[in-house]
Amino acid sequence: MCRHARWREMRRRQGRRRGRNDMTKTDIATRVYNHTWKLDPIVRSLIDTDFYKLLMLQMIWKLYPDVNATFSLINRTKSVRLAEVIDEKELREQLDHARTLRLSKKEMIWLAGNSFYGRAQIFEPEFLAWLSNFQLPEYELSKRDGQYILDFHGSWKETTMWEIPALAIINELRSRTALKALGPFTLDVLYARAKAKMWEKVERLRELPGLRISDFGTRRRHSFLWQRWCVEALKEGVPHAFTGTSNVLLAMDSDLEAVGTNAHELPMVAAALARNDEELDKAPYKVLRDWNRLYGGNLLVVLPDAFGTASFLRHAPEWVADWTGFRPDSAPPIEGGEKIIDWWKKMGRDPRQKLLIFSDGLDVDAIIDTYKHFDGRVRMSFGWGTNLTNDFAGCAPTELKGLNPISIVCKVIEANGRPAVKLSDNPQKATGEPAEVERYLKFFGAEDRVDQEVLV
Amino acid sequence: MCRHARWREMRRRQGRRRGRNDMTKTDIATRVYNHTWKLDPIVRSLIDTDFYKLLMLQMIWKLYPDVNATFSLINRTKSVRLAEVIDEKELREQLDHARTLRLSKKEMIWLAGNSFYGRAQIFEPEFLAWLSNFQLPEYELSKRDGQYILDFHGSWKETTMWEIPALAIINELRSRTALKALGPFTLDVLYARAKAKMWEKVERLRELPGLRISDFGTRRRHSFLWQRWCVEALKEGVPHAFTGTSNVLLAMDSDLEAVGTNAHELPMVAAALARNDEELDKAPYKVLRDWNRLYGGNLLVVLPDAFGTASFLRHAPEWVADWTGFRPDSAPPIEGGEKIIDWWKKMGRDPRQKLLIFSDGLDVDAIIDTYKHFDGRVRMSFGWGTNLTNDFAGCAPTELKGLNPISIVCKVIEANGRPAVKLSDNPQKATGEPAEVERYLKFFGAEDRVDQEVLV
Repeated sequence: MCRHARWREMRRRQGRRRGRNDMTKTDIATRVYNHTWKLDPIVRSLIDTDFYKLLMLQMIWKLYPDVNATFSLINRTKSVRLAEVIDEKELREQLDHARTLRLSKKEMIWLAGNSFYGRAQIFEPEFLAWLSNFQLPEYELSKRDGQYILDFHGSWKETTMWEIPALAIINELRSRTALKALGPFTLDVLYARAKAKMWEKVERLRELPGLRISDFGTRRRHSFLWQRWCVEALKEGVPHAFTGTSNVLLAMDSDLEAVGTNAHELPMVAAALARNDEELDKAPYKVLRDWNRLYGGNLLVVLPDAFGTASFLRHAPEWVADWTGFRPDSAPPIEGGEKIIDWWKKMGRDPRQKLLIFSDGLDVDAIIDTYKHFDGRVRMSFGWGTNLTNDFAGCAPTELKGLNPISIVCKVIEANGRPAVKLSDNPQKATGEPAEVERYLKFFGAEDRVDQEVLV
Repeated sequence: MCRHARWREMRRRQGRRRGRNDMTKTDIATRVYNHTWKLDPIVRSLIDTDFYKLLMLQMIWKLYPDVNATFSLINRTKSVRLAEVIDEKELREQLDHARTLRLSKKEMIWLAGNSFYGRAQIFEPEFLAWLSNFQLPEYELSKRDGQYILDFHGSWKETTMWEIPALAIINELRSRTALKALGPFTLDVLYARAKAKMWEKVERLRELPGLRISDFGTRRRHSFLWQRWCVEALKEGVPHAFTGTSNVLLAMDSDLEAVGTNAHELPMVAAALARNDEELDKAPYKVLRDWNRLYGGNLLVVLPDAFGTASFLRHAPEWVADWTGFRPDSAPPIEGGEKIIDWWKKMGRDPRQKLLIFSDGLDVDAIIDTYKHFDGRVRMSFGWGTNLTNDFAGCAPTELKGLNPISIVCKVIEANGRPAVKLSDNPQKATGEPAEVERYLKFFGAEDRVDQEVLV
């Protein structure tokens, strides 16, 4: 073959690769399949949830198997009328789809075989056997005043598992609705800007030498794929600082540590179940004892603010000071951290051996300020949520309010028919029936509670 | 089918769509084809070139068919040792590939059937018949002092067509080399940031209500695909201001206007061919007369700076003031524009009826400043080049010097064996043998020539 003919041949072959004549290369079957699109599931796995749900689930399954608990969606951002934004049919399809999920064999093997927080076999075989048949229970959905009423009634060990998928579904349906306004090019610009913005954050975090940070962004994420990208960005950009993700599925798929310990639902249910003042008084500590029966080491993290941190610390038994750390979740981070450090000192403990986990509404500025404030005085870790996985401010070519995250939670509202309450250090984050909140406030006191605007 | 079974089935089908189990969906044939990758051609079409080359080509073919002209690559950024950056084998493969190209039937039909600058059949049938067999001529490639010597000898009507593909190939091979350092994630961040950066520029340009701007960025582009994205961004973001692209292929594929008129090579060759001082004196105007024999209207744009704008204006015949506009290409835009406006006024013409086209090293600041300076006093248009299609400063996760654009041109250096010279209003942009440059300077004068750093 002469040189020219060789080139002709090479050119002919290469024309197939990256030509401008894209239409001839379209995969017709895929295209037809796509334009008959029915459902793009938001939650595709039961372990697309926060790791702490599994740890708590095992405790509930073991110690509270007969307790009933109702979880309910609470949209604190009333100005966003979710029932007008999200199509009910689409919402039901997504919730129904989540109910079809079961743990896959691979997921079961991974949960059984992986070490969590350095500990092998953290999940008991009997628990895993029960979990292998787990299905999300029924839901009740209705509308009132432009909002969805979304309730999960039933056994605590089933309803608890709706918290994360319900929130992820609502949040992603909302962003999908907002994105319907955009064409392919503006979508490309949107994600390019979001990536550029995320990377600026990564570059700022790089400047903190001893930083430890993890992804806590599942529930409020813009979308599953975007959360995965953000997790990848932290893995790539701050590999030494990035300690893991609360998302069990992403942890498995990306060989990351699954992180997280426990949540307010434990003291809230314990308090709801209290039959008298003495039991109510002891409820916050009782669940810690329960926890300690199952878990140890770095999993011994106290969440002190369910009924106010000040009251919690004042009445805390000596052994609480032996736990590894605290996660102040509603006080301003520096103020809240200082109070816990003072308490450790008062209890004769060295804060430098202790851990503070910050996880409430963090943005990069708050992370940097808090890090610098406490650097060298205490061990620290940051659980980065909404501002990690759902920060699209300024990314759309024209403002899309539907992309601004909202403050939405899925909380236990009653246990065995008794109302559940959360007071929090920030009255804006309190939940529960007003009369019951009043009763708790009289009981635990309102000391040090500070109103802070809840953005996310 | 019961409801549950329906969901199971739907889920099974949908698992194929956007699953995490991507490996099972890999198109094996494509994958195998890709990992035997041989060449990704940079120039895939003879009309992946600037429109002005075709306009000039028709004039050369018609009026100067027997003139020989040598074009040569000139890298003004000596600090970048191109022969050490770009692999010679890869460069030869790309140049050889470009030589295999012929105009396709679709391209021929489009050139014949499309209107350019509002004029149908701008290309004569005889010219198109000749063009349909066009092939890029041979090249001569060697290395010296870390630079490539890349020369194109032969008939002017063939060698002229190498200017743009040669530059595009060199520039894209250089960026490909730089990008070899990056993994898939950092490449993703790089392009996300570049897109975000480009969109910031678009948003700034939006604020100029009467702006007219076009893409002149083919020769210095980062890559073909990136140029296409930038053109798409202008089309999407400033649809009313965006008047077209100099790239004929992109104009055809994206239904945009193809824009551009003529270049320095015309007066340079005319001057080189001059047999005496009288002919040299008339050379810059002779080519304008030639041009006017073929083209009219908005194509009557004077490029005044080949041998210095001051000299050009001082000796210009009256009819030059009747042309539609000027493209000052090497003076500082405001200064250069003011001198041309003064000249129009001196010649009794109303500048508000005239057009200034700015195209020299423009960034957004220069565009905005120039626009604001001249707004209302003259018609304006901006030809945006390197800073449009090759601005990756600050986009790589770590600095990649190989992505900074270089100042590289492909210039005519001799015609019929006689040296060609460009003086320019900026001595940094002068080309030609030093002794010959001296002779031209004595002849045309050095009036108003101002050294400006040439970045791109």
